Amino acid sequence: MDPFLSPIQKEMERVEEGLDAALQSDVELAHEVARYMATLKGKRLRPALVLISAKATKAWDERIIDAAVAIEMIHAATMIHDDVVDSAAMRRGRASVNSVWSGQVAVLMGDFLLARALCILVSLGNLGALQTVARATERLSQGEILEIHIGLQADTREASYFSMVADKTASLIGASCKLGPILTGASSEIVEAMGKYGESLGLAFQIADDILDFTGDVSVLGKPVGHDLRDGKITLPLIRALTKASDDERAAMQVLLQQKEKSEKDWERIVAFVETFNGVHFARETARNYGERALKCLQVLAPSQAREVLEMAVRLVVEREN
Amino acid sequence: MDPFLSPIQKEMERVEEGLDAALQSDVELAHEVARYMATLKGKRLRPALVLISAKATKAWDERIIDAAVAIEMIHAATMIHDDVVDSAAMRRGRASVNSVWSGQVAVLMGDFLLARALCILVSLGNLGALQTVARATERLSQGEILEIHIGLQADTREASYFSMVADKTASLIGASCKLGPILTGASSEIVEAMGKYGESLGLAFQIADDILDFTGDVSVLGKPVGHDLRDGKITLPLIRALTKASDDERAAMQVLLQQKEKSEKDWERIVAFVETFNGVHFARETARNYGERALKCLQVLAPSQAREVLEMAVRLVVEREN
Repeated sequence: MDPFLSPIQKEMERVEEGLDAALQSDVELAHEVARYMATLKGKRLRPALVLISAKATKAWDERIIDAAVAIEMIHAATMIHDDVVDSAAMRRGRASVNSVWSGQVAVLMGDFLLARALCILVSLGNLGALQTVARATERLSQGEILEIHIGLQADTREASYFSMVADKTASLIGASCKLGPILTGASSEIVEAMGKYGESLGLAFQIADDILDFTGDVSVLGKPVGHDLRDGKITLPLIRALTKASDDERAAMQVLLQQKEKSEKDWERIVAFVETFNGVHFARETARNYGERALKCLQVLAPSQAREVLEMAVRLVVEREN
Repeated sequence: MDPFLSPIQKEMERVEEGLDAALQSDVELAHEVARYMATLKGKRLRPALVLISAKATKAWDERIIDAAVAIEMIHAATMIHDDVVDSAAMRRGRASVNSVWSGQVAVLMGDFLLARALCILVSLGNLGALQTVARATERLSQGEILEIHIGLQADTREASYFSMVADKTASLIGASCKLGPILTGASSEIVEAMGKYGESLGLAFQIADDILDFTGDVSVLGKPVGHDLRDGKITLPLIRALTKASDDERAAMQVLLQQKEKSEKDWERIVAFVETFNGVHFARETARNYGERALKCLQVLAPSQAREVLEMAVRLVVEREN
């Protein structure tokens, strides 16, 4: 995401410094885990969106750096809890917090990051910003619970999938895009449009992630192909194939999906089933459609370099390879 | 705690209604877990303190009901995560959320409760109230991490113990006592005094809990005696005994405590060691001292029925049997 980050390089450095400072703790164990987490540095998509969305309003407010720090901490907290929930051993190609320490430490460390992010957000002194983030974290946690619930069923509809992804992934990305405009005092029209931009971008982002589960490269992705599938997660390519299959084919596939032990041959059958019904192709088209919707929301903004970067972000997300 | 609750019975009913409403969710699984949690009803100490501390300022504000609801939800969230961290099968004499569903569901449900509590707090529109709760949850999570860290060592000092308990337990009780006065617009002198009252009460409460681990009745307590001890948790009676023992006695006990497998005989030796050095007696005296400190803070309040109830709360907490 380098071309995406270059116009905000200085501000991103300040976000990194802010993250380092926010992760300090007198509690040795918390400090140790935080230091390790710093080595698992992610894409920083969300804080970058906070900064660029602010710049796109052609105004600036110093609190935006802290807002970006808080959003990344909330994201990190949800990733740590996700890895506990999935018993994931890896995170971005390195051992996850739960596997280096324990599920216990990971649960508490996630709670600590959330609480500290909240303290930072409160210090911004803006109730609108707080409301935006509070509502996003509420949707996020509901989306995660829905995902577990959906994972237990094999008759998931596309509508449930989109609702789950909107809550689980798109809500925080939407909030990231609203925070800057809220803090620079942009019009409610711009704030709402940026929220919708982020929601559509978030949906495209998650669908692209689902596609990578079928097509990705383990060395780029940091997790094996078919990982989500083997984890019992329902992804859009599979849902699409289940929707398009005949009743008999679907019933047979549902029996296979519910089967507790699956052989490598079984996994190959599932992947072939998704291919037969062009599940990946459909997901790619859907991600592009959400990308188009995101681009339309940007029309509310006056032309600027920041707006161009937001347009580029859509292309990068839709065609992403990691 | 009936005599404690009777002057706020009507308001507590509204808190219960508020909790029921706040736990509704369109996500079936979240709703199901919430319904089950309603059957694990706790003592409601924290929301009761929110209400009574408000009344003690001789003013009222409708938002106090919602503040009490949010505080209880945060407490419930930390209990759910605690049970995951401790792999506890029981909560108040019934199966814990992690044992009925799974650790995964419990992690996400805790996150959901926290996020929804935050939404309620934001809706109060008071940054001071938000800051108080945000800071308390930050201390709470750091205290929990410190507790795990301390649990791994056998050379815990009393000072570390008090710092851990202040963060883990006293912080949220302190915040509960500050919220009402903040929302009724009381003077900062009263707000601070009530915060200190709650912190001292919280320390007394946790120490009384530690004592119950040595003296309690399983049918009243809902968990077996020595539960915390067997869970590897350091409690004040044990720390006191370790402090008072000779170097040789302490070294021998530390070897025993670090031993992975312990027989019933070993546990009896540990309990006898605590008795020899009057660990429970010391803890009882310490709880009473914190009780005295709490009572002193109340002098800032004009006499009222609510102030009497706050005084009674100290006695109930210090001498509590469940």
